[in-house]
Amino acid sequence: METILNEDERIDDLELKGLKIIQNKKGFCFGIDSILLSNYAKEIKKESKIVDLGTGTGILPILLSAKTKGTKIVGIEIQKEVAQMANRSILLNNLQDRIEIVCKDIKEIKSIYEPNSFDAIVTNPPYKKQGTGAINRLETKIIARHEIAASLEDFVRIAKYLLKDQGDIYIVHRPERLVDLLSYLRKYKLEPKTLRFVQANQEKEPNLVLIKATKNAKPFLKIQKPLIIYKENGSYTKEILEIYHEKGV
Amino acid sequence: METILNEDERIDDLELKGLKIIQNKKGFCFGIDSILLSNYAKEIKKESKIVDLGTGTGILPILLSAKTKGTKIVGIEIQKEVAQMANRSILLNNLQDRIEIVCKDIKEIKSIYEPNSFDAIVTNPPYKKQGTGAINRLETKIIARHEIAASLEDFVRIAKYLLKDQGDIYIVHRPERLVDLLSYLRKYKLEPKTLRFVQANQEKEPNLVLIKATKNAKPFLKIQKPLIIYKENGSYTKEILEIYHEKGV
Repeated sequence: METILNEDERIDDLELKGLKIIQNKKGFCFGIDSILLSNYAKEIKKESKIVDLGTGTGILPILLSAKTKGTKIVGIEIQKEVAQMANRSILLNNLQDRIEIVCKDIKEIKSIYEPNSFDAIVTNPPYKKQGTGAINRLETKIIARHEIAASLEDFVRIAKYLLKDQGDIYIVHRPERLVDLLSYLRKYKLEPKTLRFVQANQEKEPNLVLIKATKNAKPFLKIQKPLIIYKENGSYTKEILEIYHEKGV
Repeated sequence: METILNEDERIDDLELKGLKIIQNKKGFCFGIDSILLSNYAKEIKKESKIVDLGTGTGILPILLSAKTKGTKIVGIEIQKEVAQMANRSILLNNLQDRIEIVCKDIKEIKSIYEPNSFDAIVTNPPYKKQGTGAINRLETKIIARHEIAASLEDFVRIAKYLLKDQGDIYIVHRPERLVDLLSYLRKYKLEPKTLRFVQANQEKEPNLVLIKATKNAKPFLKIQKPLIIYKENGSYTKEILEIYHEKGV
């Protein structure tokens, strides 16, 4: 099995239906945000056609293959080596019938997909605005973390193009970008419907936000109770343990 | 003292520096939202000129007279009888040198105030969109609860007019209106800077949101940890007890 790995790569077990993922030790590795986003999006209906904008290692399509009954899951990734690595993870999991990795700049998506062609979208876009924060020197990390290849508004505009009427988009982002995020979603007719903050513990400020928006829906936002990661004693909360130990559908 | 009361009115003790308020038993009486908003706004600098848009009973100016060293606090109220009752509360507390109640539609505010003439704004606008929710039959309650006299966008647009550059606005509202609120604030250059949800307890969804926005500030929103009202055993949390027992400045 090790022959499918390039230099600096390793295989991690996702502890979900035997799924595995290839990651580059020096590149951007998936975190709890991907786990929580895939869990937030697990309500996606069966036979849905799903797209992940900026898929990176392919972690979201792989997790969604186990957590939903979506029939077709497309992961769009701009970086050639990262997309190739994601493709090898798909083969490793024998998921090539359900998941397709497309190496493409999301800003050029109109050349390959018709408008209103997906039932659901997931995305974990770069968190940092261009020109803010410390720039990590490895290029694959820069593009995954900073809005260099595409801005948050690009992601939202393209989501509006791809999504069917009444289709849902699931996003994970940083709380400090909430005004940007909600404003862009409304601007592009993706009305925010549910929102959940993630806190390390009861006493901490949130450090992630999960949002579901629905194309052309009426305005009414439901803010859910915060998702807490750790109990006071430092162990995982019941909810987090349930998410990690989920068996899939 | 009872001679200053009209029919159906009563005097309530605010348990803060001996302050009292006149309320109409059949009208809109202040709630925890006013207490929490005045506490959120207590950082307003001394010698500030403050305005409360839609002051109702005058509860926010009266609380802010104790919680801040603002030198001039104006409460704008469209309803004549309600403004007159607020005025009697100001006299009852001997606050006529610091607080002025102005009976005016906020949409006509430009006729009496210059632009950029206030250092800080507080507002507890009607929570319900026009045409939504059960309409309370008493007119004073309708106007306090529903966007009949002015919409949320009117409140934000007028706040932009009245506020000085870098001045702050403090708002309490319902979480389901968050997208409206953040979108309007950004549209009118009142950039949301801090945001805090209020939850009845750890397990409940938030039912109020407190927001501070600053005129012409750079975008970066700090989401604070939720403000929890009750502990698991049903008693008030330490933070709420501290807010209720505050002695003022």
